[in-house]
Amino acid sequence: MKEIKKRSDCPISSALEIFGDKWSLLIIRDIALFGKNTYNEFLKSDEKIATNILADRITLLEKAGILTKENHPESKAKIFYRLSKKGIDLLPVMFEISLWSDKYLLTPLQAKEIAKAYRKDKNKVLKKISENSKSSKRFI
Amino acid sequence: MKEIKKRSDCPISSALEIFGDKWSLLIIRDIALFGKNTYNEFLKSDEKIATNILADRITLLEKAGILTKENHPESKAKIFYRLSKKGIDLLPVMFEISLWSDKYLLTPLQAKEIAKAYRKDKNKVLKKISENSKSSKRFI
Repeated sequence: MKEIKKRSDCPISSALEIFGDKWSLLIIRDIALFGKNTYNEFLKSDEKIATNILADRITLLEKAGILTKENHPESKAKIFYRLSKKGIDLLPVMFEISLWSDKYLLTPLQAKEIAKAYRKDKNKVLKKISENSKSSKRFI
Repeated sequence: MKEIKKRSDCPISSALEIFGDKWSLLIIRDIALFGKNTYNEFLKSDEKIATNILADRITLLEKAGILTKENHPESKAKIFYRLSKKGIDLLPVMFEISLWSDKYLLTPLQAKEIAKAYRKDKNKVLKKISENSKSSKRFI
């Protein structure tokens, strides 16, 4: 895993050193919205993350306290990843990105609905995801 | 400049293809908060961005319509960068990152004050930055 280098005292810079890349927020999305919790599930997402990048990102996010690692309830060979409170508190960043995309990029209908729900009642959406995360239910 | 590759239809993924890296949001921060508008001003920021990365990021952000390019009011040799409306609409992403950092990372007092102001009245802060951006005033 790459070591985190502190470039400055700026909190935006410090946070980007942890999850400022093209992949980390997609792993967080997979857990929060799609009820995915294992390495193999993340690997199957449409974006086709490479195995070495996925392993690196998971390790970094876990080290940063954003993901927690548990024994998989059904298989001893698998690790079960959840969002910690610190990870769930990162969801507003992810949702603000999706609101921006909803305004400026072509987005599928399902994503439009999520953006609409978040715009309407941010706290309700965050609460539902937080509850879902205990049982790895999909949000959508 | 690297070409943007569309990995999936996911709006979070599509947005991260544009600004999902360690640097883009720092250029946006420099313009929005520090009243910086030129290549050389960005280069002098604490994080010490490399010249080739800066040039690449500026080109990509401009191509994506997040930055606009103008003639510098004082020097013909310089280009003056501003945030477009699309760029200003990205600020909630930056601020949510700073709120998260304010909660979980060590942040300097000045950054704490910005986070506090945003938490208190998000629209007021965004409006002030939008007004400042016309005259390249510092927010802080």
